[in-house]
Amino acid sequence: MLTKNQIKLITQLKAKKYREQYELFVVEGIKSIKEFINAKQFELEQLYTTDATIFAVGQANLTVIDEKVLKKISNLKNPNTCLAVFKIKKAVVVEPEKGLQVALDAISDPGNLGTIIRLCDWFGVETLYCSEDTVDCFNPKVVQATMGSLNRVNVIYTGLTELLSNESVIYGAFMDGENVYQTTLNKDAILLIGNEANGISKALEALVNNRVSIPKFGKTQETESLNAAIATGILLSEFRR
Amino acid sequence: MLTKNQIKLITQLKAKKYREQYELFVVEGIKSIKEFINAKQFELEQLYTTDATIFAVGQANLTVIDEKVLKKISNLKNPNTCLAVFKIKKAVVVEPEKGLQVALDAISDPGNLGTIIRLCDWFGVETLYCSEDTVDCFNPKVVQATMGSLNRVNVIYTGLTELLSNESVIYGAFMDGENVYQTTLNKDAILLIGNEANGISKALEALVNNRVSIPKFGKTQETESLNAAIATGILLSEFRR
Repeated sequence: MLTKNQIKLITQLKAKKYREQYELFVVEGIKSIKEFINAKQFELEQLYTTDATIFAVGQANLTVIDEKVLKKISNLKNPNTCLAVFKIKKAVVVEPEKGLQVALDAISDPGNLGTIIRLCDWFGVETLYCSEDTVDCFNPKVVQATMGSLNRVNVIYTGLTELLSNESVIYGAFMDGENVYQTTLNKDAILLIGNEANGISKALEALVNNRVSIPKFGKTQETESLNAAIATGILLSEFRR
Repeated sequence: MLTKNQIKLITQLKAKKYREQYELFVVEGIKSIKEFINAKQFELEQLYTTDATIFAVGQANLTVIDEKVLKKISNLKNPNTCLAVFKIKKAVVVEPEKGLQVALDAISDPGNLGTIIRLCDWFGVETLYCSEDTVDCFNPKVVQATMGSLNRVNVIYTGLTELLSNESVIYGAFMDGENVYQTTLNKDAILLIGNEANGISKALEALVNNRVSIPKFGKTQETESLNAAIATGILLSEFRR
């Protein structure tokens, strides 16, 4: 059984404020939860399930709950059979490594951030830098969209001005940049992606030394942009191909 | 003012059943609505707004409503200042044109379908074929995600077995396909994308004569796939680059 206070705590974790206060975040869905448990990147605090048989015998911190309670604590419309709470590991700012890195300037959509974390995992980008005003990577919608990739990509929130000032090769995605298909891409570089509505901020734009663009093939003027996660995917593909 | 029955009709349009019955669909957000009005691809049935000054003087079919009513009829958590109802134009199955086309096998996520329609627009793919069990393109979340591209891409729901049987060059996205970066791509072709969880169905797989794949660069085994819309974006980029 769960007490009222426990239910309250879990539902509070929808808000960044409480995730930071308790240093906890929620993962849902059997597949993602098992991946988080096996990856051992984040410590399992509590595991709630309506069916204990889907986990290993002797699984630590497991509590059996009924469907009604699961529905109360879940962020999903149609909750699965389980929900887990993990401890947030404090990410430390490491020295920028060699190799391709990605930096996000104020990405606000949780689905976009989750998809970009998954893309970094796929294309072997180990570190993803996020400006302080980028959506929180422990937001339940972000966690959901990463499909477990959050275990394998180092997500670091930091001031991008300082970070980029110490980098020599910085690619930025712009509508009026050089055609990326005709650009020779240096793989020891940072790729900077801007906010969904406003693009890269003026202050950071000044630090970009390679403006790149994905050309449009549709004929009409109205088609105005690609989604931020899609643009990131196509650009990472160009760096790796 | 809106009558109870009018409010009921608009909220019913969230469901495919009622969109088909009334042959109407909803568009929200000032930018999208203006694009739909200007494109003239779909006939405007009704336009509801809390602020008539944001539209041209003499705008047809405009009704001023208060915020409370807008909140009732909106699909958004934070509704904008307006909502429009347009007539669904019956798409007809046209003879497959020359050039690159895309076909979707049972895509179920509205965000993915909307993003793929936007991608077709960007990469100059005029016709998008969807299997009958693909999510409805007039679903409000799909319309939202297309960002107006629904006006510029011909979306046709049809049996894919018959369609593909008449095509000679069919590319299919598979996890174990040929490395797309090392494939010479024929641009008079159909690119087939499968369901998010199950991929391309067995029956359609048999019709594919070019299996392609986006190679993974991350080191771990666990990273298992790319999102369907991201994969479509990267593959279309490869066809066009």
